[in-house]
Amino acid sequence: MSQDARFLALALSLGRRGQGLTWPNPAVGCVIVRAGRIVGRGWTAPGGRPHAETQALAQAGAAARGATAYVSLEPCAHHGETPPCTQALIGAGIARVVAPLPDSDPRVSGQGFEQLRTAGIEVSTGLLAEEAARDHAGFFKRVNEGRPALTLKLANSFDGRIATASGHSQWITGPEARAVVHGLRARADAVMVGAGTARADDPMLTVRGLGPRRQPVRIVTSRQLDLPLMSQLARTAGEVPLWVCHGPDADAALKEAWTGLGAKLVECALIGRQLDLRAVLAALGREGLTRVFCEGGGALAASLLAADLVDELVGFTAGLAIGAEGLPSIGALGLAQLDEARRFTLVETRAIGGDVMHRWTR
Amino acid sequence: MSQDARFLALALSLGRRGQGLTWPNPAVGCVIVRAGRIVGRGWTAPGGRPHAETQALAQAGAAARGATAYVSLEPCAHHGETPPCTQALIGAGIARVVAPLPDSDPRVSGQGFEQLRTAGIEVSTGLLAEEAARDHAGFFKRVNEGRPALTLKLANSFDGRIATASGHSQWITGPEARAVVHGLRARADAVMVGAGTARADDPMLTVRGLGPRRQPVRIVTSRQLDLPLMSQLARTAGEVPLWVCHGPDADAALKEAWTGLGAKLVECALIGRQLDLRAVLAALGREGLTRVFCEGGGALAASLLAADLVDELVGFTAGLAIGAEGLPSIGALGLAQLDEARRFTLVETRAIGGDVMHRWTR
Ligand SMILES: NC(=O)c1ccc[n+]([C@@H]2O[C@H](COP(=O)([O-])OP(=O)(O)OC[C@H]3O[C@@H](n4cnc5c(N)ncnc54)[C@H](OP(=O)(O)O)[C@@H]3O)[C@@H](O)[C@H]2O)c1
Ligand SMILES: NC(=O)c1ccc[n+]([C@@H]2O[C@H](COP(=O)([O-])OP(=O)(O)OC[C@H]3O[C@@H](n4cnc5c(N)ncnc54)[C@H](OP(=O)(O)O)[C@@H]3O)[C@@H](O)[C@H]2O)c1
Repeated sequence: MSQDARFLALALSLGRRGQGLTWPNPAVGCVIVRAGRIVGRGWTAPGGRPHAETQALAQAGAAARGATAYVSLEPCAHHGETPPCTQALIGAGIARVVAPLPDSDPRVSGQGFEQLRTAGIEVSTGLLAEEAARDHAGFFKRVNEGRPALTLKLANSFDGRIATASGHSQWITGPEARAVVHGLRARADAVMVGAGTARADDPMLTVRGLGPRRQPVRIVTSRQLDLPLMSQLARTAGEVPLWVCHGPDADAALKEAWTGLGAKLVECALIGRQLDLRAVLAALGREGLTRVFCEGGGALAASLLAADLVDELVGFTAGLAIGAEGLPSIGALGLAQLDEARRFTLVETRAIGGDVMHRWTR
Repeated sequence: MSQDARFLALALSLGRRGQGLTWPNPAVGCVIVRAGRIVGRGWTAPGGRPHAETQALAQAGAAARGATAYVSLEPCAHHGETPPCTQALIGAGIARVVAPLPDSDPRVSGQGFEQLRTAGIEVSTGLLAEEAARDHAGFFKRVNEGRPALTLKLANSFDGRIATASGHSQWITGPEARAVVHGLRARADAVMVGAGTARADDPMLTVRGLGPRRQPVRIVTSRQLDLPLMSQLARTAGEVPLWVCHGPDADAALKEAWTGLGAKLVECALIGRQLDLRAVLAALGREGLTRVFCEGGGALAASLLAADLVDELVGFTAGLAIGAEGLPSIGALGLAQLDEARRFTLVETRAIGGDVMHRWTR
């Protein structure tokens, strides 16, 4: 790997530290290198400010003069709440900027690089572009399509079941897989489940075991707000964000009750008798979310797949069979022929404790 | 890895070349090394004779004097159709024998090593014992428990389905995975499916794409011999072995018809209205089979799991969802609690083309 690739990979990995914490802003990483030595490092702070470049430049101080800045995304060029990063880089005397790809935000795209070049800074792009596109997929998706990127997680027996017929589902996968799931939750802006799971499992949907940290938003889809008011979600709605996506026909008293508990209500259109999930994701995009991690259940997973809204699949397969009476991980899809189904592309497979993890993208 | 381990690993891998071809005998490999140079190699010939040691010694000739023989299993000590390998090793002047573990055949166990030691040959055992136990699992199982080792293969969508509701199942997994399946078939003594699969898919169950070779026995379980007489299995029963495991109540005319086509009929006891699969495997053990590779379908897979007869599981997971109306890879098991299910231990997981392969043992 070239020196450029090594430092840029470091900037990317620093940037990933902000995933789940910076929405609606991208999670960017920056490394400043002078004569082969790292003199500054930074990543987008929780909430989105300060930016990665600002922090790395502050660390570098005078050493930034004549240095190279490795940034995991095109530096911003527009005046928002803070002066643009391009001006900060120019002002600090940076000689060269290496970034994988342009920002896809139309307010910035290409202009950041342009401003830097105009100021006499050498700009290299293209390196690690694929990896960066993956890291920023949620941010790009929201900017370009108005909706967050969606990861669907399924934790199955090896015959694709998520519970016995009587609803017993603890635990199919082992503690290592469950710890990995908490890590995946932590890197998402929001964790989403269907109302069926909220009713059956009384889940918390928080990140646990990773120290004190800002929690992802918890989202439940429930057309009529028909969710138990005596539940862990209801009890904690005032402390950890809880958003309920509901239809136009939800009961006014229930709306008041949930608002009173501290939940945020997001009204979405229906298709037939169910929430229109395309509309749900558009609404979540308007609220600023870039990365949504959906954990089922089977009905919601099926609807998301049927609407072709799944960008990434993460499967955990455990070494036990539950049998055909067990609850399926994915509900009915109405397929007749195999070629009607979208094929996902395998990204990786590995053992996690005694289970198999496999990741796929569209 | 020590020199001993390297040569013994080679002997094990030579031995595996015979898997599927040597039953009821074990598939053994042998390497003869004199002063660090390999002077002879051999593995059990198709049908079980000549033995690995005999062939390796013949290749080595006079160079065997004072050499070390690496053998993947304890050399045989009893007079069967041929003189015992221990005598051949002693006669050739072998100075040292390295073998992972004793044969579990009571006619041989420990006696082979004993005869060699008595003749003044140094014997080392224990190296790579676990790997050897895995290689010879089928042979040991038959000797100790009277039945072959059973591998169950499942090729699933990632939601655990093997066909759409209308029965469309070609192809869930890609060509690379299907090629691996032919390799697994080739290393089995027999390939087994349930009557439902034989009726629905009209399969050949042969090994294809691996050059001319002895085919594994094809086995179908069908209580009443209710199988299509106009089928690929029926048409080829005279060329490639076809065994049908049936119950005592099979129709006499059908028995005659299948015998006439060249099939071998194996009568087995019933439990309720189904074949007693423990009795089926015992019958197959009596016929000499050591390694059976079962490819489903869902009903047979469920019965095998419920009877705790599955020694190894091989799963292929494809990157598409079929949905809950699809055919389940494993039929009903009647589990209430998760802890009633046997947990298998993950051996490996890797990408095969665009699919995931995962292997588990009990
Ligand atoms: N092992 C695991 O990893 C795991 C993970 C998750 C769940 N589970 C299990 O799965 C079970 C729950 O799954 P489930 O399939 O019954 O329910 P689900 O998918 O969690 O929720 C379905 C509900 O979501 C609401 N919804 C709104 N719009 C929808 C749309 N467009 N499509 C689908 N649903 C929509 C509906 O409720 P409204 O009528 O309120 O709108 C619907 O009944 C539980 O037993 C749980 O234990 C297991
Ligand atoms: N994608 C894949 O990898 C794959 C692989 C295999 C099959 N399949 C699909 O699976 C379907 C067939 O599966 P299936 O579940 O219907 O049938 P199956 O498991 O292949 O066969 C079940 C039949 O085997 C006989 N049997 C005898 N003793 C039994 C016992 N103890 N337990 C269970 N069965 C016993 C019974 O038939 P008798 O009444 O004749 O005794 C029974 O109906 C087909 O659609 C096929 O395409 C797909």
